[in-house]
Amino acid sequence: MSKMNLESAKYYLEKTSSGASTEDIDSMPFKFFEPMIMSGLKVDHIEPGRVLCSMIVPQRLLNVANSLHGGATAALVDVVGSAVIMTVDGVTTTGVSVEINVSYLDAAFAGDEIEIEAKALRVGKAVAVVTVEFRNKKTGKIIAQGRHTKYLAVSSKL
Amino acid sequence: MSKMNLESAKYYLEKTSSGASTEDIDSMPFKFFEPMIMSGLKVDHIEPGRVLCSMIVPQRLLNVANSLHGGATAALVDVVGSAVIMTVDGVTTTGVSVEINVSYLDAAFAGDEIEIEAKALRVGKAVAVVTVEFRNKKTGKIIAQGRHTKYLAVSSKL
Amino acid sequence: MSKMNLESAKYYLEKTSSGASTEDIDSMPFKFFEPMIMSGLKVDHIEPGRVLCSMIVPQRLLNVANSLHGGATAALVDVVGSAVIMTVDGVTTTGVSVEINVSYLDAAFAGDEIEIEAKALRVGKAVAVVTVEFRNKKTGKIIAQGRHTKYLAVSSKL
Amino acid sequence: MSKMNLESAKYYLEKTSSGASTEDIDSMPFKFFEPMIMSGLKVDHIEPGRVLCSMIVPQRLLNVANSLHGGATAALVDVVGSAVIMTVDGVTTTGVSVEINVSYLDAAFAGDEIEIEAKALRVGKAVAVVTVEFRNKKTGKIIAQGRHTKYLAVSSKL
Repeated sequence: MSKMNLESAKYYLEKTSSGASTEDIDSMPFKFFEPMIMSGLKVDHIEPGRVLCSMIVPQRLLNVANSLHGGATAALVDVVGSAVIMTVDGVTTTGVSVEINVSYLDAAFAGDEIEIEAKALRVGKAVAVVTVEFRNKKTGKIIAQGRHTKYLAVSSKL
Repeated sequence: MSKMNLESAKYYLEKTSSGASTEDIDSMPFKFFEPMIMSGLKVDHIEPGRVLCSMIVPQRLLNVANSLHGGATAALVDVVGSAVIMTVDGVTTTGVSVEINVSYLDAAFAGDEIEIEAKALRVGKAVAVVTVEFRNKKTGKIIAQGRHTKYLAVSSKL
Repeated sequence: MSKMNLESAKYYLEKTSSGASTEDIDSMPFKFFEPMIMSGLKVDHIEPGRVLCSMIVPQRLLNVANSLHGGATAALVDVVGSAVIMTVDGVTTTGVSVEINVSYLDAAFAGDEIEIEAKALRVGKAVAVVTVEFRNKKTGKIIAQGRHTKYLAVSSKL
Repeated sequence: MSKMNLESAKYYLEKTSSGASTEDIDSMPFKFFEPMIMSGLKVDHIEPGRVLCSMIVPQRLLNVANSLHGGATAALVDVVGSAVIMTVDGVTTTGVSVEINVSYLDAAFAGDEIEIEAKALRVGKAVAVVTVEFRNKKTGKIIAQGRHTKYLAVSSKL
């Protein structure tokens, strides 16, 4: 019983194919992660301290349950959260990540239009904290909410 | 000044190219996210409640600073954290994510070998909590540490 | 050097006096923690899914820097977050805590009036997630923001 | 129905009595919070980067379910997490809190002996991250695990 569980877990972690060959993945270009996550993202509104984006959930970002992958959601908290820091006057760096957290509230399925709203809670000389919320555009239901903390004074030692 | 910041943030969010065309990305197969994140992951040790993996940081998962992308780290917390739940006796589902958090402590660069250790802190009938730690295999330094909370009783309503 | 650090840390952890004797503290009544945290809290507005409270930061909840103690803030996230779950129709329990997180953004000093706003992001059959924000009432500046996740189906096994 | 819920929530937030009068609480000394939380804490082992404490769960820190209050647990993550930063060579401040998170795994009841282990994951010039774990001393079961992030370069602007 347990042995079967161990083998399932190992298989899950080491399998990589999903219509893509290992060779294809290994030859992906440098820094491919961001375009892979962000392709299709549109900025609907932007002002200092606030960004509102929308996106149709793409098939490539689905999990086994055919909904937006929690890891992709966390990655979007990272990138949209970084972007909103940039919008604040006087900021010249997006810094390095200190902490990301995400609560998952509802599923988003392929083809669903979601909106992603990021707000700067605080952007100081050294530390910035932003919140990022994912909502189903049609129903308004919250899909996920996260916070992202960055350290901005990267020229000095972390 | 602020206007330039807004335009930079918008450009960052809507650019997608990085050697990959938008068409290539949009035609990626269903559920491509997991193989994209996990290709190259090896399971070095597995036992009930604990998984130890290793991985050479691949070029595709780098951020603009040429180190492992924080979003990719969070996604690995998700998938390796889910796998360790599977290793526990009597578990028949990996459930749905409730919360993921990650602290970022040090950078990992392309070619660095990292080890990822996941431990089940608690796997109950309804809620499981695991911890996932990323270390540089050569230096032993901690790169990141996260926790992942899942709800397991998914047949009933969340 | 290090030795002095170790002794300072040990002293900090084991000292308890601060005008109160150990005997006074040890004889405190059952469940004294909540009134100690919550005394002075006023509910300014309450509706299903949302609670707005206010409080004058009391001297008893200060830290060594004379501002609201981060541990007290976290405790208030817990109790005000639990209260907002109660406001949702059909809820008959506030459940047990699964996760609390808090970001600290600004200091609140003794005598400052703060407002604490809790909103239910999701209250399902089994899992509830709420957000709690602390603001300086005069300046509107955010002092802290947290999220609280609870498991509601406590009659069944966690 | 909903109205009853609203009144219960309001009553819960504004009640303070529990054998203690409001006057007693309001006259508590400055910075009473820490001794109230920490009285009874013993340091069993201390070394650079690691502190192991123990404590008998006191009646004053119980919640309505007669187990250790989640807010008290979070407060202990704060103070024990701060102490472990002090133990690291060259550290001259414990800084200010940036983020605290706690996962709750099991209940601890009055009279249970718990051990609290804090480890420094990283103590840099500017940012420190520590982990704090609560275990039942008799059974070894994990009661809670948290992380605490602090900003150390407080002389400069946060």
